[in-house]
Amino acid sequence: MQNFEYYNRTKIIFGKGTEKQAGDETAKYAKRVLLHHSGGHAAKSGILDSVKDSLKKAGVSWVELDGVKPNPRLSKVYEGIEIVKKEKLEFILAVGGGSVIDSAKAIAIGALYDGDVWDFYDHKKTATLALPVATVLTIPAAGSESSVSSVITNEKGPWKQSVDEECIRPVFSILNPEFTYSLPPYQTACGVADMLAHIMERYFTKEPHVELTDELCEGAMRTIIRNARKVFSGGEKDYDARAEIMWAGSIAHNNLLSTGRIGDWASHVIEHELSAVYDIAHGAGLSIVFPAWIKYNLKGDVMRFARFAKKVWGVDGSFYDPEQAALEGIFRLKNFFRSIGLPVSFADAKLGTDRINEMAKRAVKFGPVGNFKKLDAGDVEAIYRIAAE
Amino acid sequence: MQNFEYYNRTKIIFGKGTEKQAGDETAKYAKRVLLHHSGGHAAKSGILDSVKDSLKKAGVSWVELDGVKPNPRLSKVYEGIEIVKKEKLEFILAVGGGSVIDSAKAIAIGALYDGDVWDFYDHKKTATLALPVATVLTIPAAGSESSVSSVITNEKGPWKQSVDEECIRPVFSILNPEFTYSLPPYQTACGVADMLAHIMERYFTKEPHVELTDELCEGAMRTIIRNARKVFSGGEKDYDARAEIMWAGSIAHNNLLSTGRIGDWASHVIEHELSAVYDIAHGAGLSIVFPAWIKYNLKGDVMRFARFAKKVWGVDGSFYDPEQAALEGIFRLKNFFRSIGLPVSFADAKLGTDRINEMAKRAVKFGPVGNFKKLDAGDVEAIYRIAAE
Repeated sequence: MQNFEYYNRTKIIFGKGTEKQAGDETAKYAKRVLLHHSGGHAAKSGILDSVKDSLKKAGVSWVELDGVKPNPRLSKVYEGIEIVKKEKLEFILAVGGGSVIDSAKAIAIGALYDGDVWDFYDHKKTATLALPVATVLTIPAAGSESSVSSVITNEKGPWKQSVDEECIRPVFSILNPEFTYSLPPYQTACGVADMLAHIMERYFTKEPHVELTDELCEGAMRTIIRNARKVFSGGEKDYDARAEIMWAGSIAHNNLLSTGRIGDWASHVIEHELSAVYDIAHGAGLSIVFPAWIKYNLKGDVMRFARFAKKVWGVDGSFYDPEQAALEGIFRLKNFFRSIGLPVSFADAKLGTDRINEMAKRAVKFGPVGNFKKLDAGDVEAIYRIAAE
Repeated sequence: MQNFEYYNRTKIIFGKGTEKQAGDETAKYAKRVLLHHSGGHAAKSGILDSVKDSLKKAGVSWVELDGVKPNPRLSKVYEGIEIVKKEKLEFILAVGGGSVIDSAKAIAIGALYDGDVWDFYDHKKTATLALPVATVLTIPAAGSESSVSSVITNEKGPWKQSVDEECIRPVFSILNPEFTYSLPPYQTACGVADMLAHIMERYFTKEPHVELTDELCEGAMRTIIRNARKVFSGGEKDYDARAEIMWAGSIAHNNLLSTGRIGDWASHVIEHELSAVYDIAHGAGLSIVFPAWIKYNLKGDVMRFARFAKKVWGVDGSFYDPEQAALEGIFRLKNFFRSIGLPVSFADAKLGTDRINEMAKRAVKFGPVGNFKKLDAGDVEAIYRIAAE
């Protein structure tokens, strides 16, 4: 087990009707805020109105900025920074999923910086100051509601890059599982893939003696899988199934599950190129990339992948042929993704293979990716090719 | 699943050599501190010297107060409050186990209060203000290093009562598993019982649809049991086994495992009377009380206790006779406690049965205890009688 620090100061407010607390919680920090959202699901479902009511009651005024898209764009971030500076806003309340929250975090660091906010994403500057950010989560997926991460797409490239700093961790996040009843099934499925991927990135480690977090990761993955099956078998409005998924999605990415471990994170980088180039949903990119990543790395630690197959997918472990068990685990993972409507290959998502070379090169532009095995451009290309089979 | 709030701001610094960070971390808060310890294990093993070196290097001065005993006493708390007030200290650094930390927390609220600090423990006042407390943990057990709880014994009664308020949650806690190599086996065992009990108090709930936390609880319990067996089979200095136990002990009580659930907590109250009257270690009291509590409550939810037997103890679940499976779970729990040298009955600990009536009455002095089933004096007496069988 590695030495570690664990600190997560986000206050989670979870359950039915909790969006009514948004105003009072916000008022503890500021009276003039940027209200950031996509203009889609949150606005149409009435969630946004409910949040506005709560702000009004608490005497908090706001300036609204909508239009955030999946794979949130740098241009929208610039727009937000300008508004915050001009209106002297002191706080950013994101109502939405990971894209809106990531965009809010980018605005929060950009608003206190005189240069170009992209400097932080381009690793030229380290973010240490940010306006406080809080969230009302409507799409369980990215775990951004209690994480230090923000991923932004610079349309110029397109480049999809991230900042991971303590200063952008939300001060509070409100999670009402009822908000997820009305999500389109594809978005629910992408969220499920994203949270499973967050756990797998942590779970597939070569660090030995990480039993407690192995157990916690496996329990969280089983819970997500079981409850996703419920939701996709007519349980769209099953509160408890939605609640299990929503809370698991937060825990998947709040860093508890990485304590003492060395996470991998290559699959995320490899996926970011896919969604930067093809603008497909991050979760759908992950359901294509991750099974291929496992297959490529299988012999790097057959027993860990066999354990994954046994503990998460219930594969009968064969002491004589753990590799076969591990392969069966990949089969079941792909099968699960397909069963909830996700692509598991380039063909499924109707992606061409002509840009594989270009994406592989760009994935390693800051150097080799991943920790389980350090992957160079050739490795990444091979993984894309497996996914394209 | 219940609505919940989850917030835990304690910064955990975990691993080999981390005590060297005590000075720099403390210096972020104060330059003059109370250094609180027992004068036992921490002082004799060199841990305290290492912490003092680190404080010196960071320019932090201290006043020392030792002599904390297991079941920490109110008289020592009064002593600490007087020193803090007289010397105008701004911070309390506890080096030790749960007793030292609980004593430090009591001093932290008493130092900012003009009345008698017992008012808080006697539920006459609610604690909202405290000096910052931090810990260097030497005994994994109570989970006090990131909890809001403090339990103090008032020698006058003897009464053993608790405060559970956010203001006493440590600002940071340093956990170095190497510190636990030199613990006497009995203390290691008591710690293991205490952390298992913290999880069981949360796990045995009648709240339905708490799958994620069920899984996390079960994984943490299995990890503790497996690694305790390693430590007690010649693994006293097995770093990884000690590390798994130490981190699990924190997670057992940092409230993540209660999210969405209603915990029971009757066994803790029932045990507090045992250790108040007989001054036995809290963990040893719990290993006596908890199996009896389960047996008494078995028919309240046979399937939950059968699940406990299956998932935590590997009992073959019988679909035709879950009660038998549940009973086998109790048998294995007791067996495990005995195998690490803990008592599981009054006789094992050489306790008389003459004060059962008195203890049962006192356990319910603030009203019925527990949530799984509300227990009155008669119920508590019956549980003591099962434990005395």
